[in-house]
Amino acid sequence: MNRSIKKPTLLIHKSRVEKNIDLMLEKAKRSDVLFRPHFKTHQSAVTGEMFREKGVDSITVSSVSMANYFADNGWDDITVAFPINLLEVEKINVLAGKIKLNLLVDSAYSTQRLANSLKNIAGIFIEVDNGYHRSGLLPDEVEEIDAIAETISKSKNLEIKGFLTHTGNTYYAKGKDEILAIMEDAAFKLNSLKSKYIGRFPGIITSYGDTPSCSMADDLSAFDEIRPGNFVYYDVMQYHIGSCSLKDIAVAVACPVVSVYPERNELIIYGGAVHLSKEFIAGDNGFKMFGYLVELTESGWGDPITGAYVSSISQEHGIIKMPEEKINDFKPGEVIGILPIHSCLTANLLKENSKIID
Amino acid sequence: MNRSIKKPTLLIHKSRVEKNIDLMLEKAKRSDVLFRPHFKTHQSAVTGEMFREKGVDSITVSSVSMANYFADNGWDDITVAFPINLLEVEKINVLAGKIKLNLLVDSAYSTQRLANSLKNIAGIFIEVDNGYHRSGLLPDEVEEIDAIAETISKSKNLEIKGFLTHTGNTYYAKGKDEILAIMEDAAFKLNSLKSKYIGRFPGIITSYGDTPSCSMADDLSAFDEIRPGNFVYYDVMQYHIGSCSLKDIAVAVACPVVSVYPERNELIIYGGAVHLSKEFIAGDNGFKMFGYLVELTESGWGDPITGAYVSSISQEHGIIKMPEEKINDFKPGEVIGILPIHSCLTANLLKENSKIID
Repeated sequence: MNRSIKKPTLLIHKSRVEKNIDLMLEKAKRSDVLFRPHFKTHQSAVTGEMFREKGVDSITVSSVSMANYFADNGWDDITVAFPINLLEVEKINVLAGKIKLNLLVDSAYSTQRLANSLKNIAGIFIEVDNGYHRSGLLPDEVEEIDAIAETISKSKNLEIKGFLTHTGNTYYAKGKDEILAIMEDAAFKLNSLKSKYIGRFPGIITSYGDTPSCSMADDLSAFDEIRPGNFVYYDVMQYHIGSCSLKDIAVAVACPVVSVYPERNELIIYGGAVHLSKEFIAGDNGFKMFGYLVELTESGWGDPITGAYVSSISQEHGIIKMPEEKINDFKPGEVIGILPIHSCLTANLLKENSKIID
Repeated sequence: MNRSIKKPTLLIHKSRVEKNIDLMLEKAKRSDVLFRPHFKTHQSAVTGEMFREKGVDSITVSSVSMANYFADNGWDDITVAFPINLLEVEKINVLAGKIKLNLLVDSAYSTQRLANSLKNIAGIFIEVDNGYHRSGLLPDEVEEIDAIAETISKSKNLEIKGFLTHTGNTYYAKGKDEILAIMEDAAFKLNSLKSKYIGRFPGIITSYGDTPSCSMADDLSAFDEIRPGNFVYYDVMQYHIGSCSLKDIAVAVACPVVSVYPERNELIIYGGAVHLSKEFIAGDNGFKMFGYLVELTESGWGDPITGAYVSSISQEHGIIKMPEEKINDFKPGEVIGILPIHSCLTANLLKENSKIID
């Protein structure tokens, strides 16, 4: 495999991807929830096919551009899980005329503006903020939610779909118990909203998604739909959170070694911020870690080398701290693998330069 | 201008770019040094033309791919300021057959491997580490430098160009005096090496580059060549270092406002880590800042709004902290500007989505 690698390349480990999809899909089936995976992690038609082959036909994306990309690749049931961007309403109109499209709103103002300009039917989720405090209405902002519901009822093109949340706060939680408590709290709040409005809007659902809780919970039946995304590849951050094991991580960045510095136990790789992203895991005393080092094999890669990690990155360079006894194992012109901290950002940067390995 | 913006877009302020180029070019002429600007910052043929119109004809890039891109756009004198990637020697051979190409080495091992496989003539700089401790040999690694020199002398295709350094440690220096001291130290070390080898290799030069010192120093005549890159756009990090004023920053990212939260004085913009990068400026008590907020005007943008900044970013979302008295000035569907922390990474992410403004 290594011989074809000339510059930083995202290796996508197909059997791990398939296993990750299988596990989440089985859990969704067992919990009797609709599985609408978030495709922002991979942004790849090829990885998308691995979902389609398993019967997945509804997906989530995070931009209108991404929705167009997947619609062009044959996906016809897409939720754009991002607060409606009113400036893209023309593109949204075209797309809503072609596929089953769901959008997100979190204000009466945007809902009304959308109602005024939408020319085709779109499903509308009301985004709920369950403590992450990014976008979404708080569950007790009753007046605003009522105003949105009212606008939707009066519009001929807006069809209410239900209540949706992304509990990104699970990424900052301390351990499984806290993560599952965040999930239970979200389930309670989304279901309370659903109960309140279901008489008026029969068929509305609750939609929930984040990789840590969907990975750790055994049962997701408190929701009607789940939208995890990162689980398809996982990464070092998810491993640190406890969402996955090292052997579940399904992507590595193959990077050429360009310099070896035995006197300071460091390697320089061609692989920097424009390949890995600047996402890092912080430790005590200013410690930063931008990825684990793995050795590539014919069919994939091994476990991380203990004590070896990306300690610093600039635009194209990565510096790898090596244990002393390993520093002479590598030479310029060889290729090593880096397990990324945040696979979504790394996959975005290496969209044009990836390779499926079996 | 705003009306054409639908999604995150890099605005390139042409008159500021031209002024930034003029100032550095004049300083180079006054100091009688060759100006070989680093094009990794913009990676743009269009911005490249702004240099060419002013008579610049030699450039620096940080990868073979970037060298190919600019060669395709008519640049024929290019230094790849990155330790030689032996895996790309085939591409290097093709390129060296077409243009005047300079490469970097920092070990006898890589130099010998390159000598064995290079089929066309290339200039070779020996990279020197002046305290940044990324790539390059320490000035006192005499044996290794001699071995490289020896390999170059024996090779028919390697032509020694001189000694090159990037003092990236200026980015961590405390104030102008410390930055200029780093530059003086680099000048002393590079010139010592030049003196030592010039008898054997007449015509060798010293090549130096980093934006903080090249911006702050009045006189660069201690070197033969300078390679700053970031100065073309500057950014918030350079402003914090003291390399530029706010009015020198020549790029802003236009971002649609998608949500307004008056109760927590925050805006949500369509503009996240895949547009701005995750580069931030850290403050006390875990404070992080991912960009300044500016209002866009017909011909550019104003000064940053005091107290308004990007406080958090995820893949596509940016959260902006707003001063209370300003929160109601913005509505979903409007467009605001973000001055990026690190323009090189932002420009890389928005390569396909930029716009020149006059």
